[in-house]
Order: sequence, then structure tokens, then C-alpha cells
Amino acid sequence: MTDGMRAEVAATLTALRESAPLVHAITGSVSQGLVADGLLAAGARPMMTDTRREAPRLVTTADALLVNLGSLSSDATSGIRPTVEKARAHRVPWVLDPTAIGIAPVRTPMARALLRLGPTAVRGNASEVLTLIEGGASGRGTDSTVTPEAAAVAARRLASQSGCVVAVSGPVDLITDGDGVVRVASGRSMLTKVSGTGCLLGGLTAACVAAISGPKPPPRATPLGAVVAATALLTVAAERAGDLPPGSFRIGLLDALHAVDSDEIAEAVDLR
Amino acid sequence: MTDGMRAEVAATLTALRESAPLVHAITGSVSQGLVADGLLAAGARPMMTDTRREAPRLVTTADALLVNLGSLSSDATSGIRPTVEKARAHRVPWVLDPTAIGIAPVRTPMARALLRLGPTAVRGNASEVLTLIEGGASGRGTDSTVTPEAAAVAARRLASQSGCVVAVSGPVDLITDGDGVVRVASGRSMLTKVSGTGCLLGGLTAACVAAISGPKPPPRATPLGAVVAATALLTVAAERAGDLPPGSFRIGLLDALHAVDSDEIAEAVDLR
Amino acid sequence: MTDGMRAEVAATLTALRESAPLVHAITGSVSQGLVADGLLAAGARPMMTDTRREAPRLVTTADALLVNLGSLSSDATSGIRPTVEKARAHRVPWVLDPTAIGIAPVRTPMARALLRLGPTAVRGNASEVLTLIEGGASGRGTDSTVTPEAAAVAARRLASQSGCVVAVSGPVDLITDGDGVVRVASGRSMLTKVSGTGCLLGGLTAACVAAISGPKPPPRATPLGAVVAATALLTVAAERAGDLPPGSFRIGLLDALHAVDSDEIAEAVDLR
Repeated sequence: MTDGMRAEVAATLTALRESAPLVHAITGSVSQGLVADGLLAAGARPMMTDTRREAPRLVTTADALLVNLGSLSSDATSGIRPTVEKARAHRVPWVLDPTAIGIAPVRTPMARALLRLGPTAVRGNASEVLTLIEGGASGRGTDSTVTPEAAAVAARRLASQSGCVVAVSGPVDLITDGDGVVRVASGRSMLTKVSGTGCLLGGLTAACVAAISGPKPPPRATPLGAVVAATALLTVAAERAGDLPPGSFRIGLLDALHAVDSDEIAEAVDLR
Repeated sequence: MTDGMRAEVAATLTALRESAPLVHAITGSVSQGLVADGLLAAGARPMMTDTRREAPRLVTTADALLVNLGSLSSDATSGIRPTVEKARAHRVPWVLDPTAIGIAPVRTPMARALLRLGPTAVRGNASEVLTLIEGGASGRGTDSTVTPEAAAVAARRLASQSGCVVAVSGPVDLITDGDGVVRVASGRSMLTKVSGTGCLLGGLTAACVAAISGPKPPPRATPLGAVVAATALLTVAAERAGDLPPGSFRIGLLDALHAVDSDEIAEAVDLR
Repeated sequence: MTDGMRAEVAATLTALRESAPLVHAITGSVSQGLVADGLLAAGARPMMTDTRREAPRLVTTADALLVNLGSLSSDATSGIRPTVEKARAHRVPWVLDPTAIGIAPVRTPMARALLRLGPTAVRGNASEVLTLIEGGASGRGTDSTVTPEAAAVAARRLASQSGCVVAVSGPVDLITDGDGVVRVASGRSMLTKVSGTGCLLGGLTAACVAAISGPKPPPRATPLGAVVAATALLTVAAERAGDLPPGSFRIGLLDALHAVDSDEIAEAVDLR
């Protein structure tokens, strides 16, 4: 599978650069800066607004939508659902990032309800994915003490039941469409010391989903491959940034997202 | 005209550094960090709050106000108008940045209504300026496919009708008070790969307007010259930052805003 | 006192790195990025949400809470008080940063009311601390023209009356528990040219308070020492960052927060 997957990663990222998709990103205010700069560096165009009075109209112009529950303002709480519904009606693909679900009283049921609206992909850490499928309440902030492997069974089940790709972030990322499972072992632990890198991965995932959903998609493109491509992009860029302390690493990551080319990523990514 | 304009640019930027104006900046959450850091680097002092319960009171202490429609939260939606009205009542000059107007249902009529409250300057990209004057609905996100020259006629008409300076951002910036037209050809295309640089230009414009509105304004200062000075400051700083990838370019831009002096900018800026 | 204080600084910062406390930070959107990245760099884990529907529940999982009045959105206005009350009920220590109080109509009485809910520490600039105790209305934005020394008498009185540690930021920081007074003369003036460094100091203060409040606190740890430790951490990191322009200084500061070790800080900090 790996050679075919590498070709799909390269084709998806090339399509991303060529199509410069408009990504409507609803995310917490703390990560908006990194998500916007990361999308621009990667060749996409970010748009950010979350009010129920404007977001459902603006999403109709987008090529993909990211819904990250983030810090979940009142604006986002009321705006997210009508925006997702409008995206569905206009066939704009969307990605769900169920940040910090678990004990949080609003976002936990909201994430489960959104899941029924057909995201193309769900991205979270292991505890978030477990909570989404199992109804557990073990989430504690946005970090996670569950390994991605421990969530592998749950992830496949979630993917099968919901008909979406599920990506579990961690030292080794696990991505599944319920059938195939791809592990991405590239990356740097320093990614966990920069706020918003998980949110950025959600944004890049939406950008890659947009890249295979346009009028001229790459041949044999799949949602699974698009999510793998986004993960490859972030993790290989992190490796290109190198061993830097966190302030410099954030800058180096943005620089690398801009500099690395599709073939380089497809060749360098550690797929398992 | 150019020599006189260069002298005005230098005098305005010197006044900016000497007066350290307090700029009340209402802008989207995604760009607040860059706007605040850019204003500080340039020698101004940022203040950011947008609720209707506090912003109208706090603006009375400011030397200028920026209203950027940005992601337009509910707080900003209700807070902007009373803040502008209070600014007018206290003779605090203000700048309008009609971000992403076009199909957006709230901000488009809001921008037109605000225009009647007498901003000193309006800054936008070509499609935003066209939408503001022509009632078009062609806006798609915050980027623009219309060139500044195509908006030149509309910009002059908008400036004449509204009695304000209109700045159209693009590869070559066009600035007009309805009578004179100044083009600024300095800059770097990398400015479009860093989120919030357009918002920052709005903030610097407010700072330069403040600099010529204080108790000791530079001789022969005009609003047209103040807007040109802000554009010169950002674009020459971008050139000083040099050819860097986007993460490093953002840092280099902030460093250069702090380092370049008024005479250097006035000499280096490519005015046409 | 100085040798004992240096030992306490070292022990507190070592405990911070070992315990990696979860810090619930409610702060203005403009400074969230720096606060989150700074907490991560220093070894803590940030969590940010401020709505009254989620923040009071999530704070029960935190090791400390920062309440910075920041730009004070409507969400924060309604969410802060129930979050502080829940923190108290769960014995989660909390820190108050009364940003920009003075003429602001909502936050000024709110800060006084919050003070009665027993923060472990209050951090502000001199004019904010003076306003908090004296009822003055001299605040103008977030900067301050009052020196920390001028606020020393007020700070001791505030600390004694409220039973908390009071930290007054400035070129020389002054920290008092009403009895002892410690001055920290380390730092760089460039800290005032990067937005959010004061908010970050509030966040680091919460992290250090968490570090001495866990199940295994360092021996002889005191709230006064924890606040001094946070101030030492930020100011020595600023010195390690060196003489850089503001964009690069922000990056260097984050790098240094990650790199400097506890003993180095305790030895280098200029205590008076």
C-alpha cells in the first residue's frame, strides 16, 4: 500500500498548491494565528468567521470547512451548526476537530451531534477520539495521556460507523477510513510545545480535502489519502524545521510548510 | 509632488515616533497579535477592546481608532457603531477597514453605514473598495482578484463623495483624497503570505492619522500624506525584511518596523 | 533574605518543570498566543476557555487559574465570576491581573469585586494597582506612567488588606505579601515592545502558584516566593534573549523560557 499512498500524498499536495483552496476555519482564538499563517504558508487561503449571522453565508464560498471546537465562544456555539448544515447543502466538505471534549458540558454533546452531519474527516488526540465513540469523560484539557495505538480499535469503529476518515494524533499518527490503516511516524516532539499545532493539522486536513474535491481532482484520490497527505505535510515540515527551541521552531515550521515540495514530502514521510 | 510628499512622509513618521499615539484597534481576533506587535514596533501604543459596554468609553482616551470588520464577532457587531459615534463626538480620528465585505450579510451594510460617519481614511483591497462604492457582491474572502488600478476610478469617486482618503492595497498601492493620487510601488509579495498584514496597514494608518492630529502636528500635514506615510512604513519595512520564507518574514517585518527611521523610509519608498 | 529567596526560586521552578501544571488562562484574545506559547515553553500546560457554560466546569480540572481582564469580551464578562467561584470551591488557586482598569466601566468594579474572592496573587502595573486600592481613575490603556516605587505603599496595603501577594510590574518589579518586599531588577525594556508580556507574567505566576500548591510542594514554599520565581523566570529569560529587535525578541524570549534552568535563574536574577 505504501507506494500507492506516497503517490497519492504527492498528488494531493500538488493539487493543494495549484488550487489554493479557500478554507473556512472556525477555531479557538488562541490558535487562529497559527492556523491562518500555516494555511497561507502551505498554499491555501484562510477565512475565519464564526457568527451565525455571517458564517453560514460565507461558507458557501469556501472550498472546505474546518470546525475546531477550540475555546468555543458563544459565537461559535451558536454559529457552528448552521454553518455545517449550509456547508452540507452546498457540498462543501468539512473536517471536525473535537478539541477538549470529555467533561466539557457544551462541546461534548455538540461534537457527537456534529458527527451525524457527515464530516469527511475527524481529527483529534487519542482521548478525544475515545470520548467521541465511547462516551467516556476522561478528557483533561487538550493534551492526552492515551496513546494513539490504544485508540486504534475505537478509531476504526468510529470511521466505519460514521463513514469518515479518523485521524488520531500522537507520536505516531494513526489514520483510518475503517478499512485501511496508515501510520505516520514522522514529526518532532517539539510540536507539542507550540500551541495550536493540532489545530493547524485540522486546517491542513481541510485544505487537503478541498484539494481532492475540486473540479479537477487528482486521479484515484481518496479522503484517506488526503488526510495522510495533511499529516505528512505537517510532520515532514516539522522535521525540516529541525531541533530548535519552541519559539524558533514555530517560525521554522511555517518556513518549512512554505518550502517543502510535494515530492519531497511524499518521499520523506515515514509511513507504516 | 513627489518631493513634497517625501518630506510629508518623513515628518509624519517622525511625529509618530515622538508622540507614541494610543491607537484603539478593533480588529478580528486572528490579526490582533500582528496589529498589536506591529503598532508597538512602529512606536505607537495599541489598545484593543470592542464591547459596547467598554469600547465607547475607552475610545475617548485614544488618539485614533481603527475599525476593521475582521471576523466580526457579536461583541464587535454591537460595539463598533457606538464606539465610532463616541470617537466622532470626542474628535478622535478613525480609519475604516471594510474587510471581506461583499456577500457577507452583516458587515456589508454596516460598512456602508459607517462610511457616513466620516472616517479620515478607508483602506481595503480593490474588491472591497469596489463593493463599498458600487454595491457589488463580488467579495470572496479577504483576498482580491481585482487590481488596484481597476479600482482607481471608484476610489477617487469614493474619496470625493465621502470626503475621506481612500487607500487600495495591492502589488502597487493606490491612495487618493479624490483630488491627488499617489501610488506606492514598494513592498514584497510575501506580505500576502502572512495573515493580518492588511489589518496591520490599517492600524499603522490610524497611527499616522493620530500623529498629524495631535496638539503639535507637523507643518503642512495632510490626511493624504498620513496614509501614504503608513503605506510607505509597511512596504519599506517589508523590503528591509528581505527575501525570507513566511514565518521568518513576519519576524523580520516586525524587526524592520522598529528599526527603519523616518528619513530612510521617505527616501526609499517608491512613489509614483 | 536573598539567599533564602534564591533557594525558593530554584525550588519553585524545579517543581514547575516536574509537575507540568495545567493552567486555565482567561485572558484577552490579543495575548492568548503568547500566554499559551510561554506557558508551554516554561513547562506548564495551558487551557483557555472563558464561557460561563464551560469555564466553571473545566477549571475544576486545572492546577491554577489566571484571570486577566484583557479585552474583556462578553463571554469573559459573564464567565469569569462563576469560574473563580468554582475554582475557590475546588481549592484551585488563582491569580488576578486587572488589565486596564481605571476609566473602564465594567472591568473596574469587576476587579474590585473579584479581589474579595481571595486571589493568591494580584499582578499589574503601578497605575492598575493604585486604581485597585485607591479607587483612582487614572488608567489609560494598559501602559503606565506611575513607577512601581510610587505604588509600593499602596501595594503593601493592598496585600495586607486582601491577604494576597501583590506584584507591581515595571523597570524594577516590586513584589510584596504585605510584610516582606522583594524587588526584581532583571529584565529588558524590550519586554514593553512585545504585546502580551505582562499577561504572560500573569500566566507564569499562576503556573508557579500551581507548582507550590500540588500534592508534593517544595519545602518552605510561600506564595511570595512563587510570585518572585515567576518574575525571575520571565525577566532572566528576557536577559538571555538579549538585545534583539521586537519580532526576534519575542521568539528569543520563548526560546529562553524553554532553555534556562532553575538554578541558572535563581543565580542570575537581580534581587533587591
